[in-house]
Amino acid sequence: MRLYILGCFAATPRALNNPSSQILEIKNHIFLIDCGEGTQLQLRKNKIRFSRIQHIFISHLHGDHFFGLPGLISTFRLLGREKELHIYGPKGLKEAITLLLKLGDSWTNFPLIFHELSSKEQNVIFQDNTVSVKTIPLDHRVYTNGFLFSELPGERKLNTKAVAKYKIDKVYFNKIKKGEDVSLEAGQIISNDLLTMDPPKSKQYAYCSDTAFSPKIVPLLNKVDVLYHEATFLEEEAVLAQKTKHSTAKQAATIASKAKVGLLILGHFSTRYKTFQPFVKQASEIFESVVLAEDGLILDL
Amino acid sequence: MRLYILGCFAATPRALNNPSSQILEIKNHIFLIDCGEGTQLQLRKNKIRFSRIQHIFISHLHGDHFFGLPGLISTFRLLGREKELHIYGPKGLKEAITLLLKLGDSWTNFPLIFHELSSKEQNVIFQDNTVSVKTIPLDHRVYTNGFLFSELPGERKLNTKAVAKYKIDKVYFNKIKKGEDVSLEAGQIISNDLLTMDPPKSKQYAYCSDTAFSPKIVPLLNKVDVLYHEATFLEEEAVLAQKTKHSTAKQAATIASKAKVGLLILGHFSTRYKTFQPFVKQASEIFESVVLAEDGLILDL
Repeated sequence: MRLYILGCFAATPRALNNPSSQILEIKNHIFLIDCGEGTQLQLRKNKIRFSRIQHIFISHLHGDHFFGLPGLISTFRLLGREKELHIYGPKGLKEAITLLLKLGDSWTNFPLIFHELSSKEQNVIFQDNTVSVKTIPLDHRVYTNGFLFSELPGERKLNTKAVAKYKIDKVYFNKIKKGEDVSLEAGQIISNDLLTMDPPKSKQYAYCSDTAFSPKIVPLLNKVDVLYHEATFLEEEAVLAQKTKHSTAKQAATIASKAKVGLLILGHFSTRYKTFQPFVKQASEIFESVVLAEDGLILDL
Repeated sequence: MRLYILGCFAATPRALNNPSSQILEIKNHIFLIDCGEGTQLQLRKNKIRFSRIQHIFISHLHGDHFFGLPGLISTFRLLGREKELHIYGPKGLKEAITLLLKLGDSWTNFPLIFHELSSKEQNVIFQDNTVSVKTIPLDHRVYTNGFLFSELPGERKLNTKAVAKYKIDKVYFNKIKKGEDVSLEAGQIISNDLLTMDPPKSKQYAYCSDTAFSPKIVPLLNKVDVLYHEATFLEEEAVLAQKTKHSTAKQAATIASKAKVGLLILGHFSTRYKTFQPFVKQASEIFESVVLAEDGLILDL
């Protein structure tokens, strides 16, 4: 699982401060999460192949999270894309994108499939054999979801010594890896747990931006390996955070601590700040494993 | 009159190829012409004060000419703008921008005034005491206008020697500069042309992007000082130019030559090209005064 931070700043793009966007590489998927203005440039800088992006998740309809989307879709078109593109985001997104493309008389030549969200409960919005994606309902000025990306348990790992001991033919290996027992010709049944070991632990990544301090999401984040949580402000601006429905670094750390996550990534910094060590300092008082997001940062998780 | 080329490439933004956008500084106005994705970054790089932009002219509704507009408007809002913003562009632009802002529940706290265009004839769309702006109807795949920016003639220049000779009191100077004759106390009338000289020649700048080769615009460009004309392709791609309703460098030069303009600026290059001297070479065969646009180029005209 690899995470590319394409942009982690609030509000307007600046030369060194890109608005929200991330790529999550997970089990052969390339998921784009949020798409502020300039995201396509950030994708190019990070050498992400555009054609590999098939699913885009938009948290909410503030410009710094989706104004890069119309341009990216147009670029897909110009690149001759034919593959489906799935877009998950708040109700209204389809109308907006459709209108923009229609005005330019430039509808896509690939299927553009919108999955509009309006539920305030957690929902599974994507699932295949390897990964599931659920919403994390957040508390912001407009309807907003975070996203929980979960690897699904892989096949069980073959215990090669045990398999050799029972002289099991390799035609059974696939079934065994799927968890089945084996009946030997002599009639003996070998239980799967003698033949296999647990698969590698499945990982989870949670993206929570933008949101006020919202303890009710804690159960949805229970023990996730990595949590990206917005920290627009330092504690000195707690009143402003509350007013604008954003979080402070300390509040993000409180959520991380209560949910017992593995690692907390702080991001969505207000551009009023020039140095970011105070974010780590304030968060560390509550929760130990903290890293700062940074445009261009790549994390192997 | 000063022109900033913020972006002069067709299609999708790349690290070194910004989509269409220009700033024209003319008689104390700062006009923004087209606004592709990333324009606000280019404005910052060129140290253009955002608050000085009061009029934005959008040629047509292809993404590379206006996908930077929603973000720029949002930035104006975040910067606490109070001054009116006037936007001139094709019908449909108001609906699109309004929808995007409404989705984000982030309407502007400054007056946002749309002047929607749909006429296929030339029209005056802006005029004050110093400058007029007229449309230049172009021939593209969607409804498109170029723009003709004209300085209006200033006051006549006082002939100080003549004024001294006739012993004219300075209380009359303002009237004289406006072109009035003067009646002396003795009853004699001194004609204005004895007292003044012509004001400095007024300049004109024409922006023509995007368009197929369109000789019918020639009379509208008659003897303008500077013409920016799109040259998406070289002559080798003349068929593609015709098909996509773009121009070649040679066609742009043909328009410049027929209209007897002072200087031709070529731009809106397809990103398929890596070197641009062939554009100058092909255009120069038809018209002598040619320069290449370049992102970041500033021209004092």
